[in-house]
Amino acid sequence: MTWCSAPFESRTVQLAHGGGGRAMKRLIDRMFLPAFAAAGDVPHDSAVCVLGSERIAFTTDSFVVSPLFFPGGDIGTLAVVGTVNDLAMAGAVPRVLSAAFILEEGFLLDDLGRVVESMRRSAEECGVRIVTGDTKVVPRGKGDGVFITTAGIGTVAEGVLVHPGRVVAGDVVLVSGDLGRHGIAVLSVRDGIAFDSPVSSDCAPLHRLTGALCAGGLDVHFMRDATRGGLASVLNECAEGARVDVVVEESGIPVSDGVACACELLGFDPLYVACEGRMVVVVSAAEANEALGRMRSLPEGRGAVCIGEVREARGRGQVALRTRYGTERRLDLLSGEQLPRIC
Amino acid sequence: MTWCSAPFESRTVQLAHGGGGRAMKRLIDRMFLPAFAAAGDVPHDSAVCVLGSERIAFTTDSFVVSPLFFPGGDIGTLAVVGTVNDLAMAGAVPRVLSAAFILEEGFLLDDLGRVVESMRRSAEECGVRIVTGDTKVVPRGKGDGVFITTAGIGTVAEGVLVHPGRVVAGDVVLVSGDLGRHGIAVLSVRDGIAFDSPVSSDCAPLHRLTGALCAGGLDVHFMRDATRGGLASVLNECAEGARVDVVVEESGIPVSDGVACACELLGFDPLYVACEGRMVVVVSAAEANEALGRMRSLPEGRGAVCIGEVREARGRGQVALRTRYGTERRLDLLSGEQLPRIC
Repeated sequence: MTWCSAPFESRTVQLAHGGGGRAMKRLIDRMFLPAFAAAGDVPHDSAVCVLGSERIAFTTDSFVVSPLFFPGGDIGTLAVVGTVNDLAMAGAVPRVLSAAFILEEGFLLDDLGRVVESMRRSAEECGVRIVTGDTKVVPRGKGDGVFITTAGIGTVAEGVLVHPGRVVAGDVVLVSGDLGRHGIAVLSVRDGIAFDSPVSSDCAPLHRLTGALCAGGLDVHFMRDATRGGLASVLNECAEGARVDVVVEESGIPVSDGVACACELLGFDPLYVACEGRMVVVVSAAEANEALGRMRSLPEGRGAVCIGEVREARGRGQVALRTRYGTERRLDLLSGEQLPRIC
Repeated sequence: MTWCSAPFESRTVQLAHGGGGRAMKRLIDRMFLPAFAAAGDVPHDSAVCVLGSERIAFTTDSFVVSPLFFPGGDIGTLAVVGTVNDLAMAGAVPRVLSAAFILEEGFLLDDLGRVVESMRRSAEECGVRIVTGDTKVVPRGKGDGVFITTAGIGTVAEGVLVHPGRVVAGDVVLVSGDLGRHGIAVLSVRDGIAFDSPVSSDCAPLHRLTGALCAGGLDVHFMRDATRGGLASVLNECAEGARVDVVVEESGIPVSDGVACACELLGFDPLYVACEGRMVVVVSAAEANEALGRMRSLPEGRGAVCIGEVREARGRGQVALRTRYGTERRLDLLSGEQLPRIC
């Protein structure tokens, strides 16, 4: 492949290239996929591969969150939970993880110890083992304390097939709880911004929810955790992947008072703010109540609600928000970077 | 686990914690293993896990080499080949890789394109696919161009069991070619140090060599690629893991003139300089010739030679070098950092 930077607006990497919005999608579509993807590959947070007689899900994420410690978690919690959730979203049972550390010279060993302890605790909670790892050190000023990259392997049961292409008109869109707490929690401790009512991250493993959803009988068409780029990005992925229109009701989307206030104050749209323990689920209308019941039976899905529906696409597939005033506005992918380094 | 920094000489991360020597071993033994390892785990570059009916090897490495481009390769080549080699050393056939990028704001997209193209080419050469990935961006001054973390999965054939514990007195020690070219090649382009006779990295995949060695009949007791910490570190791992003494002959260890000159000039010991395409193999004396023949039949093993032997341990197991003058000196693990950021 001969590659040139012509199809990009810039000759250099911008913060927006990591933001989960349009710039990142362009980088992936124009640089990474042409080099690495095979014909017919469906981009997903986890790849599903056949190894001998097993179907496995395989995924990776780097974590560069700043600051490292925030209300409700730290980079270690995120590194385990984030990768477990990516596996869960492929319908897999998470099994083993790897953890690679890039440490900056001068980083406090006590802080590293706290992070490692969070990872141990999270792995235990998720029922996975961290079986292999790596340690690199970069000189002062060439890193930022610690970056952690985890990869994970899960096993996919026979018959499980979760894929945006399976979404059809008439389906309904569910979310597992209130949105945007992770992004606001990280922001609240960054650069000394503090809110009256502290917001704690929603960071939590979702594998029990996906396990309950995928168990016998219920046919989940699509599920995805709403991380970078928030709810709006997941809905766009779904609309684009299935070539359908998705319409969600503003009044039905759960956002806590703390997140709503913070977003109002800072000019953010909560539908684009990252979660680390919330997921979007698409099922047929007939199975919506069963799916909601299963989700609500677990603490991490107690706040599950239906927020919208899927329709035939009028164009190439897009997402619309029906506002409290009865009007509709388009929810597009972010074109810039709203909240850098939230994971 | 309550963890405190008391067992460390320092309260902060030092460059030596990433150097492959004693400080890194201490960090792993005292912080990572107590949190992550289960009883009976044998530390290895790859973990071997049973998933359903398959035995798989799983490994990860972060790459932070500086500079990104060096004679004989770049960070992209290393990121693919390094992980493929870790899988190969567990006796596995490398199958799929993940790739996670931490980009620094302002990094040239053209340079990223060159790195991605190297990864594509290396993956093709190694017969593996890069099936999943991630992209994060950190602000200028919080990274260094690009860091890449790859993880890899391979399948391990029945009957293959490669493990330092299998090494016994009477075995012989082989290397697949001349040592230290990778470390010197990276150094030669760093900080403007240049040598008259340019040294090119030995960076190369080793999975064909390990495949040839593990094929029917031959019983490989131990194999390991000599990366950070060089030959001396691999031999120490073997001596410690099997509680044996390893004795190698200085005159038999292949080092190219270019590497020897550079080491002489800079005061390095080539036995501690990293390779990225050389491996140590331990087999019984009776199978040494067969193993050497199989290695020499492939271009990447053309320079394979026998460099020493394994003896009953007189103490806890250590490594000795028999010099050209007939004396013996101990080859211990590095206690500081000789060459930071060579991978």
